[in-house]
Amino acid sequence: MTQLENRTYDEIQIGDKADISHVVTERDLILFAEVSGDVNPVHLDEDFAATTPFKGRIAHGMFSGALISAAIACELPGPGTIYIGQEMSFLRPVRLGDEIRIELEIIEKLPKHRARIATRVFNQDGKQVVDGVATVMVPTDKVSVARPVLTKVSIG
Amino acid sequence: MTQLENRTYDEIQIGDKADISHVVTERDLILFAEVSGDVNPVHLDEDFAATTPFKGRIAHGMFSGALISAAIACELPGPGTIYIGQEMSFLRPVRLGDEIRIELEIIEKLPKHRARIATRVFNQDGKQVVDGVATVMVPTDKVSVARPVLTKVSIG
Repeated sequence: MTQLENRTYDEIQIGDKADISHVVTERDLILFAEVSGDVNPVHLDEDFAATTPFKGRIAHGMFSGALISAAIACELPGPGTIYIGQEMSFLRPVRLGDEIRIELEIIEKLPKHRARIATRVFNQDGKQVVDGVATVMVPTDKVSVARPVLTKVSIG
Repeated sequence: MTQLENRTYDEIQIGDKADISHVVTERDLILFAEVSGDVNPVHLDEDFAATTPFKGRIAHGMFSGALISAAIACELPGPGTIYIGQEMSFLRPVRLGDEIRIELEIIEKLPKHRARIATRVFNQDGKQVVDGVATVMVPTDKVSVARPVLTKVSIG
């Protein structure tokens, strides 16, 4: 998709859904460590991670948060949305190589163009790994903007 | 610091604090867009951002979440902490060039080695930009691990 288009407050309805899927790669873990500063070896060092209760490398919990926020900003409601709050419960680890699905569902329309969105993440086995709710201010004006071309990022 | 060292459940006390500071750079916004997939132009395109209510580029809200999670994972309680949940309210925008301070404070010790940590973010004017609470499982064993050397990440 070369355009980012939003859904306005008048357009959204309770029960509206959107979802994105993502396979967690080593590149994700390296970039998230770089941008967050969370260099915990459970995410970066396979030998160390094998000694933890997780028995292997896991994604940063807040990486799921980053994907949730991207789904809200780009898909539902999309551009022009103002993020007011997010609650998240990290239910299960997300492992390197997992294919996770971020599912959004409008669960409440509030006054002042606000809405509450269920933000759920599942792994490839259908097990829920993150539960949560976002509160946002939904755009009142239709926005359609060109998806920016990202600056190239290289690793190694 | 070349070692990451934690504080155990027995060591932490209500009122214990830690903080990290960070100047928000264009590199942060590019990397966060890359790793999250949130390519919203309010973070990436100065001309577009000037037309929004923010009148300029702002950081992704969840970038503050990423810094909070890093402070928990690396500082208080540090390595071995298991992230259970996070609530965040985004109170004010964080702008490109802002120097933000992430402040953690242990506010409650719970059974089963759990704790609640206030997670507050302030800008250089002392205004609070994020409020929130993390719930974590605090390590029972002392951990001191070498801070991993990060893979080089280049932009452009």
